Amino acid sequence: MAHDYELLSIGCGPAGQKAAIQASKLGRRAAVIERRQLGGVCVITGTIPSKTLREAVLHLTGFRHRGVYGQSYRVKEDITIEDLSSRYLDVIRRETDVIRDQLTRNHVAILDGTASFIDPHTVVVAGADGSEQTVSADNIVIASGTRPARPASVAFDEKTIFDSDGLFRIERIPGSLVVVGGGVVGIEYASIFAALGTKVTLVDKRRRILEFCDDEILEGLQHHLRDLGLTFRLGEEVTAVEALEEGALVALASGKRIAAEAVLYSAGRQGATEELDLGKAGLEADDRGRIKVGENYRTAAPHIYAVGDLIGFPSLAATAMEQGRIAALDAFGQPVDSIPDLIPIGIYTIPEISFVGKTEAELTEAGVNYEVGISRYRELARGAILGEAHGMLKILVSPTDRRLFGVHVLGTGATEVVHIGQAVMGNQGTLDYLLSAVFNYPTLAEAYKVAALDAQNKLRAVGRLTG
Amino acid sequence: MAHDYELLSIGCGPAGQKAAIQASKLGRRAAVIERRQLGGVCVITGTIPSKTLREAVLHLTGFRHRGVYGQSYRVKEDITIEDLSSRYLDVIRRETDVIRDQLTRNHVAILDGTASFIDPHTVVVAGADGSEQTVSADNIVIASGTRPARPASVAFDEKTIFDSDGLFRIERIPGSLVVVGGGVVGIEYASIFAALGTKVTLVDKRRRILEFCDDEILEGLQHHLRDLGLTFRLGEEVTAVEALEEGALVALASGKRIAAEAVLYSAGRQGATEELDLGKAGLEADDRGRIKVGENYRTAAPHIYAVGDLIGFPSLAATAMEQGRIAALDAFGQPVDSIPDLIPIGIYTIPEISFVGKTEAELTEAGVNYEVGISRYRELARGAILGEAHGMLKILVSPTDRRLFGVHVLGTGATEVVHIGQAVMGNQGTLDYLLSAVFNYPTLAEAYKVAALDAQNKLRAVGRLTG
Repeated sequence: MAHDYELLSIGCGPAGQKAAIQASKLGRRAAVIERRQLGGVCVITGTIPSKTLREAVLHLTGFRHRGVYGQSYRVKEDITIEDLSSRYLDVIRRETDVIRDQLTRNHVAILDGTASFIDPHTVVVAGADGSEQTVSADNIVIASGTRPARPASVAFDEKTIFDSDGLFRIERIPGSLVVVGGGVVGIEYASIFAALGTKVTLVDKRRRILEFCDDEILEGLQHHLRDLGLTFRLGEEVTAVEALEEGALVALASGKRIAAEAVLYSAGRQGATEELDLGKAGLEADDRGRIKVGENYRTAAPHIYAVGDLIGFPSLAATAMEQGRIAALDAFGQPVDSIPDLIPIGIYTIPEISFVGKTEAELTEAGVNYEVGISRYRELARGAILGEAHGMLKILVSPTDRRLFGVHVLGTGATEVVHIGQAVMGNQGTLDYLLSAVFNYPTLAEAYKVAALDAQNKLRAVGRLTG
Repeated sequence: MAHDYELLSIGCGPAGQKAAIQASKLGRRAAVIERRQLGGVCVITGTIPSKTLREAVLHLTGFRHRGVYGQSYRVKEDITIEDLSSRYLDVIRRETDVIRDQLTRNHVAILDGTASFIDPHTVVVAGADGSEQTVSADNIVIASGTRPARPASVAFDEKTIFDSDGLFRIERIPGSLVVVGGGVVGIEYASIFAALGTKVTLVDKRRRILEFCDDEILEGLQHHLRDLGLTFRLGEEVTAVEALEEGALVALASGKRIAAEAVLYSAGRQGATEELDLGKAGLEADDRGRIKVGENYRTAAPHIYAVGDLIGFPSLAATAMEQGRIAALDAFGQPVDSIPDLIPIGIYTIPEISFVGKTEAELTEAGVNYEVGISRYRELARGAILGEAHGMLKILVSPTDRRLFGVHVLGTGATEVVHIGQAVMGNQGTLDYLLSAVFNYPTLAEAYKVAALDAQNKLRAVGRLTG
């Protein structure tokens, strides 16, 4: 008997959406199941609201203009939660509309409710109103995403102690905040609240945050976060987080106790797989709720795929979309380009950082020789115009074939300009392209030219010394 | 007899500086002569102050945030000339310092005064204090730049009637302004004052402004400038500009008379060659003060070069620097890479536009088939976050080899993100690179992916229809 759909996505974040839309573009009947709002964590509580919050904070605090008008400059003196939330609620609504429009235009059915498997081809969709609907599909793409890990030692109350999905319910900007967990989410929020003037303490059990980032860029970031008043407590384990009469208390294994008006606990996320009843599909999740996948994101059941944050690193919206698309192409026997090796990482801290390719540490560990070219924003005309003192761009170059190993950027526009280096790398360009290229003046992109000249001068110096 | 210097630059704008520094990097004795301030028009009255003014206006008017907070939103209610000038005077000082520092670090001598030739290897430098100094050089690089054309029919008074170099002496933001000349400078200032709330009328004798830009991008720009209240009077010749008791009057050949509080006359620039006494060097300038150059910017005298705005199109700081560098390399018999074909054009209007490569009109005229891929900022998550309704990115693709013919961008970040497409083009990349590339999310750079998918869908549709 024919199934209801040829492809069914469980979850309508970036991964699930793109899988269903790709199936539909191939002329297949497709549907998505979503238990909350279209867009998933990305649009509802994650990427979009946090980036919008960041943009509102950058504007209202006048942060980008402090280099010009002084460190105490603010566009709005008393910034309220409403100033911030009105902006991201509006963007969330727009983005949800865009997704609904894309799905409808592509004739993808939208099923509201929580999915669980009955058998490998059938799921039941339980609506919030108690309704139940059974649907079957030839291919199923699990894209149910993740939820914050909530250990029992943390007394989440959504009033003073939040996880990263609940933080948007905070009622006022706290005077002090402890962020537990120095991953991407933790450090982004820590920097946003620090820019707002909140006294932020960041606790992480690791001795180094963002260990996949370049050391020098990270040092620059940490330096500027300290400048914003952020306190780092690294190599410290949290033993308990408790609500106080007013505020909350974070207890550390070292004996330290930190009181603050609010706590954001953002140490890790779990695959949102509990309600799926995976056993009925012959699948299982690991202890972190993650599903193991093979080639083209197939699970142990060859017609079931798992994509997105659910399968772990890199947990980025952009890669999730590609994974969803690839799963759908594979499901219908279409040729699949694998995801390219060059995946940029963008971290929307204040100031932002971004990179693509290898770090110095990775190259050193692999015993690969490289030369470094650096440009500081303050030496660029655009940097002076922006009053931006701290930005920098660094390229890592092969002394033999002059290819770029990596590009690392800290400062305004980092997440945008990194793509210039990525395009050079992805099209087998070399240092010589950057040396001879003409850039718009005055732009931040000129940093590539300055960094390339710096690398070239160093390579020539080595050349002269070694004959 | 040995000359004082091995290379002497006349003029210390971007072109003259880079020529002298390149000579010095080759171990040659070099000097620059400057009659005003280091930096030339670029730093003192042109690019740098106008871009800084633009940045200050964007910030103080809250322009970038009007999509979010409404069209009447302003960061500062009463913006004064001092709010604006304090910012650019600071940047000019910093940039002049940077140049002085670079010249000194590279042991380039700085001679203050106005240069004129005595013979082909010797110039006299007349200081403002009446002093005179004679210097000789093996090679001379003329980089004296341009000055605004000042026709007799325009009663420049630097109070209400300005040229673009004098505009910085304006004492208050005019309620109304007529800009004569719709070239890059004219249109940039027209948009800046329109964003400030000035009622601007732009007059140009051509029927179309910025004729080298893509039609669709230009249409978008004009549409948004009209939205800002700008009035276009195209195909209209100016017969006279006269000062009134208060303000000024612009008379058009069509009989129209436009009164305004101020007039900016920016129709053309002249090569600043009059004082040079070129005849003594065996050279001559044309009626627009321009010097003719051949290979590697050599003039008719093989040891004398002319570079920068002085030699005409494209009159951009970035290309001027390359020209200066090339002249110096050639002077000392070094191998010279020619300036690459891919020169981006950035126009800092509000909103800004930028492009690289061919326009649709150029391809059509050449009988070259192409496909178009378009992305609108409002469809991007970053566009929604910025509240930017009007931005767009367009790529022109070859249906045969899938190379990019051109990239055209309107909106925030245009002058930066254009370099991504330029890097693809400059490294022989194709549409397939953009189709498979992963971009940071949410960024404006994602527009490339959306535009690439759009082009790909159109190419496939053509493919299907034509078998």
